[in-house]
Amino acid sequence: MVKVGVAGYGVIGQRLADGVALQKDMELVGIADVAPTLSIKALKEKGMPYDLYLVDGADTSKFDAGGIPYKGGFRDLIGQVDVMLDSSPGGVGAKNKELYEKAGIKAVFQGGEKNSVADVFFHGYANYEKGLGAKYLKLTSCNTTGLIRSVDCLDRKHGVDRVAITIIRRVADPGDYHRGLTNALQMDKAPSHQAVDLMSIMPHVEATGILVHTPVTHGHIITVVAHSKGKNKITKDMALEAFKSHDRIRVVKLEDGFLGNSSFFRYARDLGNPRGDMYEIGLWEDSIVESGDNIMYAINIPQESVTIPETMDGVRAAMEMQNDSASATAETNKYLGLGKWK
Amino acid sequence: MVKVGVAGYGVIGQRLADGVALQKDMELVGIADVAPTLSIKALKEKGMPYDLYLVDGADTSKFDAGGIPYKGGFRDLIGQVDVMLDSSPGGVGAKNKELYEKAGIKAVFQGGEKNSVADVFFHGYANYEKGLGAKYLKLTSCNTTGLIRSVDCLDRKHGVDRVAITIIRRVADPGDYHRGLTNALQMDKAPSHQAVDLMSIMPHVEATGILVHTPVTHGHIITVVAHSKGKNKITKDMALEAFKSHDRIRVVKLEDGFLGNSSFFRYARDLGNPRGDMYEIGLWEDSIVESGDNIMYAINIPQESVTIPETMDGVRAAMEMQNDSASATAETNKYLGLGKWK
Amino acid sequence: MVKVGVAGYGVIGQRLADGVALQKDMELVGIADVAPTLSIKALKEKGMPYDLYLVDGADTSKFDAGGIPYKGGFRDLIGQVDVMLDSSPGGVGAKNKELYEKAGIKAVFQGGEKNSVADVFFHGYANYEKGLGAKYLKLTSCNTTGLIRSVDCLDRKHGVDRVAITIIRRVADPGDYHRGLTNALQMDKAPSHQAVDLMSIMPHVEATGILVHTPVTHGHIITVVAHSKGKNKITKDMALEAFKSHDRIRVVKLEDGFLGNSSFFRYARDLGNPRGDMYEIGLWEDSIVESGDNIMYAINIPQESVTIPETMDGVRAAMEMQNDSASATAETNKYLGLGKWK
Amino acid sequence: MVKVGVAGYGVIGQRLADGVALQKDMELVGIADVAPTLSIKALKEKGMPYDLYLVDGADTSKFDAGGIPYKGGFRDLIGQVDVMLDSSPGGVGAKNKELYEKAGIKAVFQGGEKNSVADVFFHGYANYEKGLGAKYLKLTSCNTTGLIRSVDCLDRKHGVDRVAITIIRRVADPGDYHRGLTNALQMDKAPSHQAVDLMSIMPHVEATGILVHTPVTHGHIITVVAHSKGKNKITKDMALEAFKSHDRIRVVKLEDGFLGNSSFFRYARDLGNPRGDMYEIGLWEDSIVESGDNIMYAINIPQESVTIPETMDGVRAAMEMQNDSASATAETNKYLGLGKWK
Repeated sequence: MVKVGVAGYGVIGQRLADGVALQKDMELVGIADVAPTLSIKALKEKGMPYDLYLVDGADTSKFDAGGIPYKGGFRDLIGQVDVMLDSSPGGVGAKNKELYEKAGIKAVFQGGEKNSVADVFFHGYANYEKGLGAKYLKLTSCNTTGLIRSVDCLDRKHGVDRVAITIIRRVADPGDYHRGLTNALQMDKAPSHQAVDLMSIMPHVEATGILVHTPVTHGHIITVVAHSKGKNKITKDMALEAFKSHDRIRVVKLEDGFLGNSSFFRYARDLGNPRGDMYEIGLWEDSIVESGDNIMYAINIPQESVTIPETMDGVRAAMEMQNDSASATAETNKYLGLGKWK
Repeated sequence: MVKVGVAGYGVIGQRLADGVALQKDMELVGIADVAPTLSIKALKEKGMPYDLYLVDGADTSKFDAGGIPYKGGFRDLIGQVDVMLDSSPGGVGAKNKELYEKAGIKAVFQGGEKNSVADVFFHGYANYEKGLGAKYLKLTSCNTTGLIRSVDCLDRKHGVDRVAITIIRRVADPGDYHRGLTNALQMDKAPSHQAVDLMSIMPHVEATGILVHTPVTHGHIITVVAHSKGKNKITKDMALEAFKSHDRIRVVKLEDGFLGNSSFFRYARDLGNPRGDMYEIGLWEDSIVESGDNIMYAINIPQESVTIPETMDGVRAAMEMQNDSASATAETNKYLGLGKWK
Repeated sequence: MVKVGVAGYGVIGQRLADGVALQKDMELVGIADVAPTLSIKALKEKGMPYDLYLVDGADTSKFDAGGIPYKGGFRDLIGQVDVMLDSSPGGVGAKNKELYEKAGIKAVFQGGEKNSVADVFFHGYANYEKGLGAKYLKLTSCNTTGLIRSVDCLDRKHGVDRVAITIIRRVADPGDYHRGLTNALQMDKAPSHQAVDLMSIMPHVEATGILVHTPVTHGHIITVVAHSKGKNKITKDMALEAFKSHDRIRVVKLEDGFLGNSSFFRYARDLGNPRGDMYEIGLWEDSIVESGDNIMYAINIPQESVTIPETMDGVRAAMEMQNDSASATAETNKYLGLGKWK
Repeated sequence: MVKVGVAGYGVIGQRLADGVALQKDMELVGIADVAPTLSIKALKEKGMPYDLYLVDGADTSKFDAGGIPYKGGFRDLIGQVDVMLDSSPGGVGAKNKELYEKAGIKAVFQGGEKNSVADVFFHGYANYEKGLGAKYLKLTSCNTTGLIRSVDCLDRKHGVDRVAITIIRRVADPGDYHRGLTNALQMDKAPSHQAVDLMSIMPHVEATGILVHTPVTHGHIITVVAHSKGKNKITKDMALEAFKSHDRIRVVKLEDGFLGNSSFFRYARDLGNPRGDMYEIGLWEDSIVESGDNIMYAINIPQESVTIPETMDGVRAAMEMQNDSASATAETNKYLGLGKWK
């Protein structure tokens, strides 16, 4: 049993903890945070299913006042784990790394950290082998994780050498008040970092893209124009077959009621998924169109939970639990129930 | 065991079915709907925990195409139940009533139907006794249900004879595309129906109010200016004590992170509540202010789920399972886990 | 002086009337509508700068009650004009056409009508010559009009044979309550009609695209991936020079404060433009990126006013006021003040 | 001619400059700012109708690069004016005050400054006389300004001794990206500062209130529950007659198309008002309801422009141009065209 800790129990951290708890070959030792946030209060109201450790700077009196029990300090947690999933706010992970190095444990960082924090910039499908035995991995961000799933899927089956993406980005998570956008679409400087990151993970693909922020909270939408590497272009049927075979891509139709990003959230709530989360990206069959030797399609990225499977893959790579992507992702998918809708 | 069916498996119907399934003294016989909506598809993907019956007009070929099994027709369901919870689209319930009358079963209608559909316009706390043994009950709408909880709570302890409310209404449910509002606050003609409905349920209170639609999906907010009936005004402390003692009111503070309506949704998701639902209304301690002989406060109404407890109370009244509000609501609350956060 | 009428004084009709009033070689005879809408009430409060005619079915008592003077019926207006700009609600234009035919006048229809209503599907830059002397023209819709401006601009200078577009569509106009979208991104079936329409106007270009509705009111954003026809790819510098030379394209930078779609609206308000309108599309210099033999860029479409210039061009074509696109658009641009920011 | 300058050419400053330019008994000497914002760029594109002065810290190279001419430094402007309208960002006004004191000029500050910056906290109708001859005035904020208009209107005619308000606040201005709210209603700690400020201006009225932020950009809506001071309650007819007689209150009906806050913005654009601005507050006739000895109603606050008239009044008071509120507000209203819709 690989022993795992989670540092930072926010939007991502909570889901990482839940994800680890579902992996039968991993053990969640505990989680760490600095303040009695709503998420920690909810953990307490649920009866503390996960043990809590306090990071440096935590004001214990606030936890005591809320009747929130804690097992110890961050170093106590570090001392018990093989690998830490670090989902601290951007920049904090780099500081935490010093503690991980001192303790000799491995770590998987989330997309908010700089690439330099890690030895390998990682994606469970596209470059699993690079992560094998690595000490420090950094996961791709939510958009890049989902985007690469779809591009890697096409690339493996049919060859892709160029993509141009448009990211229609949700601007805040449900429950956020500290950031937001009201009646505006905001541009980012092109090319978007997701296109650049894709090239870092898949160096044989040339990528560019434009990102636009939109005032919604549930699920980014990305349109992808992908160019066939070979002589034969990728047809809609070829693309559809490839996507449908992927365990982390849910292919849907408008006529079935998947009218937009919020349909996935509604469906996941109705499925009874905890928090209404979805690990898979959505892909609209009705969005796939051919254009010369390009194939164009649109995907939905459930930003809160999409990186959880690839992070589990990252633990598998770092701890050498499986030796190749196919075996590792199959194991992750089994425990997370991915692909069973097919 | 009282046998219960649910007609209309939409936003409310799904939650009614879940609510009945939690009542240990009720049995959910099945649910009925007309089309393989996303909600029905999710039911199928979950393995059909509830039996499905098809109402007249359902195209069975569509259910067959989706591999969705059904047990029979609506009349088959009606034949097996003591009481039907009717959450069909507005107007359909009135037609269904003819079937219920023919079969001699009772029914509880939701707020979308006209009051005339029922013998009693019902609220589990404010007029439970009126519903005892009634054949047809109609529940108050989501806003009215939550509003009355708070006004009845104050009224029972301290006496209230007048309220003026401002309803800041969410305009659509998560996942809705057929209705919406974009960058606008829309006025309704005053007085709002919720104020009028409150007077119908609590005839000793004079009520008026203004309703404004806002472009959000999670939780109405209502401000209430309530006037003390007696000589002594209701102070903030008196109000707070009353609210805190209520099993369907969750008193929260801004400083704890409950910054607005979406905090409740986030908290409920983190609690692991199915669909991220909350049965209780939220009440901000920091919103309570005194004004002359009035007390003013703000509540949060989780529109998708708030009427579920009072509907369970309605079954209890119609079926005479308990003889008074205190006993009935206590039973409902126990099975739904209400008040356990206190 | 070409005599012009405007049928339908809504969002587009008001702007058409203002646009005609600015053309020194056209005379606005009057406008026609069916009800005393807010727009008509504003016209009255301004002192009736334009004469009002009532279409069939108008309830004169409502105009009288509001003290709104009218000159006569729709046929009276038709009898005085050479050409009617028809911006009636979709479908009404086709009925009006019978009146135009009977009276022997020409007409220019807006994008809401079916293509079959007109002899020529028209764009002032891309196919002006086709409209010369035509009896009935139909303008491209707002998105298509702006999109074609940019694609035609590149095509004329450097050759374009394929485009793939992503339309990030505003879902409602400011002041709309009858339609809207709340916290959702809604997909349309691909390919989007704008891509299909572009091919109709520019048959030598292959186009496809995906459209996503977003909950904002000010300005669509379109990303365009355009493929070079020739051997030499279009570089960022080549594209930028072409765009900057166009009188209906305003090239802006993020660092100057044009952070998104709402910046254009704010800027136009600050410029003192009536209604805060902008006739030109916006194009972000910072969005232009190269990808293989493609150039990618993003444009902003001010949906309420973008078709006004091309509609003026349409009058020029139908009435043969100028014989080629360059002369006609130059005349329109001069009167509308287009390009003077350069 | 009273000589006036405007410090800070942002959302409010631009409108103050335009407002002063319309007062025939005032002269706008110039405006001052620190950076070539979009507003300054628009001023340049319009041909510099107002002279620009640069405050300390301005980087002249940026103005030169944009070809934006300036007349001099802030002290040059100060040296030429009798009174400065200070609409600098919150806190900057307090620093500027030192310069005003040294130069011996008067100043009128906007709501963003602390009350302590001024000798008098001012409203043109409610306490004009207090501002007579004062050196430093601070205007009430946008919500408070509009709210007091309506309460003062009722109070003068019929007597009001208590109000309870609910402020449904727009969270950002059109064109804002630095602040926003997405799919959330955010609570403030009660009582809202607007209620407290009202008591400061109208000390004979007891006020409290709750404020909720909403994700829209055009116009706050406030509901007011006002208690009659006298023995006779204020009826709907009495209130309506009072409101209709006020030159800064526009009484509208839902049936006329004023369905919400964005209708006012649309109407003002259609009226041809610069920037689509409105100086008057809107008041819905259909919102007025009686409740015991209270009258309840809803108003719309056009946040960008509502304080302009009262700021003009402030200049009149400080410079003793008129000796009483009635004369001063009549003069302001005449130049701004207020009340002419009646």
